[in-house]
Amino acid sequence: MSGNTFGKLFTVTTFGESHGAALGCIIDGCPPGLELSEADMQRDLDRRKPGTSRHTTQRREADEVRILSGVFEGKTTGTPIGLLIENTDQRSKDYSKIASQFRPAHADYTYMHKYGVRDYRGGGRSSARETAMRVAAGAVARKFLEQRLGIRIRGYLSQLGPIRAEKLDWEQVHQNPFFCPDADKVPEMEAYMDALRKEGDSIGARINVVAENVPPGLGEPIFDRLDADLAHALMSINAVKGVEIGAGFDSVEQKGTEHRDEMTPEGFLSNNAGGVLGGISSGQPIVASMALKPTSSLRLPGRSIDVDGNPVEVITTGRHDPCVGIRATPIAEAMMAIVLMDHYLRHRGQNGDVQVSTPIIGQL
Amino acid sequence: MSGNTFGKLFTVTTFGESHGAALGCIIDGCPPGLELSEADMQRDLDRRKPGTSRHTTQRREADEVRILSGVFEGKTTGTPIGLLIENTDQRSKDYSKIASQFRPAHADYTYMHKYGVRDYRGGGRSSARETAMRVAAGAVARKFLEQRLGIRIRGYLSQLGPIRAEKLDWEQVHQNPFFCPDADKVPEMEAYMDALRKEGDSIGARINVVAENVPPGLGEPIFDRLDADLAHALMSINAVKGVEIGAGFDSVEQKGTEHRDEMTPEGFLSNNAGGVLGGISSGQPIVASMALKPTSSLRLPGRSIDVDGNPVEVITTGRHDPCVGIRATPIAEAMMAIVLMDHYLRHRGQNGDVQVSTPIIGQL
Amino acid sequence: MSGNTFGKLFTVTTFGESHGAALGCIIDGCPPGLELSEADMQRDLDRRKPGTSRHTTQRREADEVRILSGVFEGKTTGTPIGLLIENTDQRSKDYSKIASQFRPAHADYTYMHKYGVRDYRGGGRSSARETAMRVAAGAVARKFLEQRLGIRIRGYLSQLGPIRAEKLDWEQVHQNPFFCPDADKVPEMEAYMDALRKEGDSIGARINVVAENVPPGLGEPIFDRLDADLAHALMSINAVKGVEIGAGFDSVEQKGTEHRDEMTPEGFLSNNAGGVLGGISSGQPIVASMALKPTSSLRLPGRSIDVDGNPVEVITTGRHDPCVGIRATPIAEAMMAIVLMDHYLRHRGQNGDVQVSTPIIGQL
Amino acid sequence: MSGNTFGKLFTVTTFGESHGAALGCIIDGCPPGLELSEADMQRDLDRRKPGTSRHTTQRREADEVRILSGVFEGKTTGTPIGLLIENTDQRSKDYSKIASQFRPAHADYTYMHKYGVRDYRGGGRSSARETAMRVAAGAVARKFLEQRLGIRIRGYLSQLGPIRAEKLDWEQVHQNPFFCPDADKVPEMEAYMDALRKEGDSIGARINVVAENVPPGLGEPIFDRLDADLAHALMSINAVKGVEIGAGFDSVEQKGTEHRDEMTPEGFLSNNAGGVLGGISSGQPIVASMALKPTSSLRLPGRSIDVDGNPVEVITTGRHDPCVGIRATPIAEAMMAIVLMDHYLRHRGQNGDVQVSTPIIGQL
Repeated sequence: MSGNTFGKLFTVTTFGESHGAALGCIIDGCPPGLELSEADMQRDLDRRKPGTSRHTTQRREADEVRILSGVFEGKTTGTPIGLLIENTDQRSKDYSKIASQFRPAHADYTYMHKYGVRDYRGGGRSSARETAMRVAAGAVARKFLEQRLGIRIRGYLSQLGPIRAEKLDWEQVHQNPFFCPDADKVPEMEAYMDALRKEGDSIGARINVVAENVPPGLGEPIFDRLDADLAHALMSINAVKGVEIGAGFDSVEQKGTEHRDEMTPEGFLSNNAGGVLGGISSGQPIVASMALKPTSSLRLPGRSIDVDGNPVEVITTGRHDPCVGIRATPIAEAMMAIVLMDHYLRHRGQNGDVQVSTPIIGQL
Repeated sequence: MSGNTFGKLFTVTTFGESHGAALGCIIDGCPPGLELSEADMQRDLDRRKPGTSRHTTQRREADEVRILSGVFEGKTTGTPIGLLIENTDQRSKDYSKIASQFRPAHADYTYMHKYGVRDYRGGGRSSARETAMRVAAGAVARKFLEQRLGIRIRGYLSQLGPIRAEKLDWEQVHQNPFFCPDADKVPEMEAYMDALRKEGDSIGARINVVAENVPPGLGEPIFDRLDADLAHALMSINAVKGVEIGAGFDSVEQKGTEHRDEMTPEGFLSNNAGGVLGGISSGQPIVASMALKPTSSLRLPGRSIDVDGNPVEVITTGRHDPCVGIRATPIAEAMMAIVLMDHYLRHRGQNGDVQVSTPIIGQL
Repeated sequence: MSGNTFGKLFTVTTFGESHGAALGCIIDGCPPGLELSEADMQRDLDRRKPGTSRHTTQRREADEVRILSGVFEGKTTGTPIGLLIENTDQRSKDYSKIASQFRPAHADYTYMHKYGVRDYRGGGRSSARETAMRVAAGAVARKFLEQRLGIRIRGYLSQLGPIRAEKLDWEQVHQNPFFCPDADKVPEMEAYMDALRKEGDSIGARINVVAENVPPGLGEPIFDRLDADLAHALMSINAVKGVEIGAGFDSVEQKGTEHRDEMTPEGFLSNNAGGVLGGISSGQPIVASMALKPTSSLRLPGRSIDVDGNPVEVITTGRHDPCVGIRATPIAEAMMAIVLMDHYLRHRGQNGDVQVSTPIIGQL
Repeated sequence: MSGNTFGKLFTVTTFGESHGAALGCIIDGCPPGLELSEADMQRDLDRRKPGTSRHTTQRREADEVRILSGVFEGKTTGTPIGLLIENTDQRSKDYSKIASQFRPAHADYTYMHKYGVRDYRGGGRSSARETAMRVAAGAVARKFLEQRLGIRIRGYLSQLGPIRAEKLDWEQVHQNPFFCPDADKVPEMEAYMDALRKEGDSIGARINVVAENVPPGLGEPIFDRLDADLAHALMSINAVKGVEIGAGFDSVEQKGTEHRDEMTPEGFLSNNAGGVLGGISSGQPIVASMALKPTSSLRLPGRSIDVDGNPVEVITTGRHDPCVGIRATPIAEAMMAIVLMDHYLRHRGQNGDVQVSTPIIGQL
């Protein structure tokens, strides 16, 4: 109940601080019989890993995950899967300033209020480093969903500060360091980031994530709607300030005749719903979008207070992402995968298995 | 786990269909000793009630709530509070069409896929009528938060289709049928809605909700961040397609120097965070916003299919809100109250009570 | 989390005080498509109902249950099932004494410590009257288990004070007011109870409950072992002080060669395990037993204190069961049914459906 | 929901197989500010450790626990505490027989039915080795309870097969390898165990556990009664077949006048309740007792079947405890500590802190 667990049937519980001994996670409720090895997770971990381009933090973490339990002779056994990533690149440095000051827009101030104590090294528990474990756990969910149901989950950066991707070419997403699906915008992004880094400032971003081939029927009506759980999952990612499903905030100005997705025997004629009706998947692609704020770790000085309430000027040195959104795509995919996995198991528990083969109507 | 419960320590579990015998709810975990009567809930229920202006559905429901347990001699006892609202205005009508057709953008199609059976009368469980119980439960949370912590939760309609409120005058919010805080825009909204009704179409809306005087320290880091739980709560309201905290999607184009809320000994200098840092309340006002889609129950015909997969033209007669957002403000406030209440108890469980009197720094 | 909910996937949440307006319950997670009417529950409610013989309390409650939601056209819809029993026989009486005194061995003292306030009328929430709702909910579970899996759940009184049933003749269980399976002991029990009533004292009892035809594979290893959940469920019944599975406390003096249930291709050769190995059902009958303490509501005076800490002599008048165990058999059956139902759904969620038809080996 | 987590606010989630890479656990919800080091856990781990006398298994495990997170500068931070014990003494051996046979009274058969796959090395997840993590987690709870509330939790072996302890001398408990509180019985136990080992058989045991100085008010009425959660916790320990609270099964033959614990201004006059009334602690010592079955790993041949359903004769060689009860005392204490800790936090969440200093009446 202290918020370190996500999911009801497929549960992911994480631990670990940025500069502690290790990050870890327990996946409970994974169905038995799934072929699983470290390599399945490493692929996604490497996509999130820092230091792969000049546009992300230069902290170098191997982020090598070890499976400690729950897998036997290459297959999941149905028992909890323990995962561990040892922290390797914790530079010893002088933490006295960070220990006594509250960095603006960081969790320093609120953790102190909540707990009366905090591990200030590198942000401690509030560091986005924690998301490595989500990516590892998401890889397990993703593999199951793909093998069992043919679900494909993919994300991309749709906007970096003022620059919007205008084309969605999935082939391009992994051809550039931004997960940008519009090749034409990549040079602009490169230039923008280079200028930003020089300037010492940071910028926000928007990530979209799409799940295709999701069978209709997943999601619990009322409080645990599929979209509500997705909003929960995505908003729980560090720096996220907004979540949309389907048409999202555009719905505000839409008329009913425009928004409603009409149906024909061949399928839906539009997808303003983003694949969710009444909280339950419709068989259309699940489409979500999230806003990430600019990172607050800047070398440009900011006004703040110290732990005694005195005014201070804070400068954050060290290795930080000038745009945390750049590495967020694999995290968003992972959270989408975990949500869908959890809802698949929940659905199967109450209602029996989904009909994979014969949707009533086709997909858009 | 079937999604009809919200909250971990202050839990709200609802039941009931739109045209069934009754709606009900169990509030579990309410602290003992709170003075409580039906009147406390009725005030908010009446604000959500249909039929109070020509701009909402003309269905007339008394929505009179009865407390069946958990209150003794005018005070909560700490045992579960059972609430009941009997349904009174269920017109007997011919449901044969609605039984055999899937209304576009409704939950008909997805419920059928999920359960293989559905109560089609008035939308059954997927009807927004269910939210009456959230409002009743929210009133309990709100009262506790106000009395114990001095928290004030208020919402308003910030946009109705293309018309945006430009002033935030809390006094105005209850002076018009829209919960609009900008008196100058009310005539425009009136005219817009009249035209829309004539046209037979519907429109979306945006609701903002603000909690003031929230002590710093509420919220669980990682998955159950205060903002993540809020996103979950708001996205679980019927018709909601997007949620923002603080600067929300504007964060995408903000630079770090602009977004980060600097602090001085006198308080924060801005509130882009919306009162939440690292998932934990900062003592600033909690600010959330949500987008509601236009209602899909239209008398303008729409293409769809019947239960056998044949094409049909669907016309929805009956009494429906042309803008579901108009009645949504009390629901958003209720969900905000439930989230804060739950997190207050969760915080108190792990960390002991909050320091109400002496925040380190003042509020903006 | 305030303990009024049982189950993880098939959840039962109850509310209501002994002398309040009503008792109620929400069953969430029930699979759709189950034929269900009030009559299905009434049968078991009537078995638990007081006043059916001279050996139980003469309080007369109709205990008529109403289904308020979740059932449509005679079948469950998968949405929450709201149940209500209005209290009818609350005699108005003078509660001033009971309000100011703590009855020995009652929850008066502990509720007061916990909540600082209590509904003292008839025991309030701590009254065994609450178990009516468990019986109603258990009837739903029982019906599903029987229809879907062929599971049969039956209980009986195996001991009433010093008198032990020595034969297990299921036909006899419903031929006497004690649920005693040994007809020869009934006259002795009748005489014992008559003497006890005259004396003004009360007595304990032991109830056994057996589930047959449970498929192997139900139960979660480690903390939510099937037997651990059963122990939880049975110990949560008012007045229960001990729970055994299979050989129970006899295991203490058994040697391994005696206790271990050997297997042959035709089945197990004994059932000391009580149908559970490593926390998971083995396909053998699940066998549990529980001890109920004598009721503490006696007209024989007992020493106690009042709310101010002064010594008082407490005499409990009113209508009470001299042996609460007599009416406990349907409650034990109900809790067993709820546990098995919950574990069936949990199993199906993680592992897919059980193989009903082809157990590896036969049952004993 | 797959049963590897215990607790609602103070949650313990474990992973790991007997012969896998490591055992681990995440403690979530621990209050911040508690001084904690590995040594606090090691003390209890060493008490449970195998190989400390000739009467337990000769498997040698260092059982050295590492804290991986949640502790900073010697104090808990309120974030999850990750614990790890690497497995060191996994002898490589021939598992072909154990892989193809179901050992009688083991979880082999049921795991296979549940998951269709199992890690058969040393019992895999069903091995009592998992309880090492419970002991580690329990040590954290125990330390908090002691420091914050002055609660003391102690257990002892009250019966080993036919030999009952007749005196309760706490000083003796740690003076012998059995946790026996009656020094006079120790030689008899030694002789009994030596004979048993020679014989190749095993025997059951009974463990009692007592918590003193528990404040009144802990426990949630109805389903999560303190005694129900205790029964759940104790029954979840490997080999446990029965649980009693207070008078337990003796209640069956007690009359109400005998069982009810009368109160005077100086305190209770007896403790048949075992410290729990209506599911809530009364301030008296919490007293529980549990039965452990004899271990089923015997070198004396037993009839069973193989995975193909053919009859086989099973002989279990290797290093096994002839009486699993001998090492169970620290595990029972740990589970009691976790239950009390969880209920303390749950109580504090809903009701605010307990009054530690001024119980209304004294303890017995």
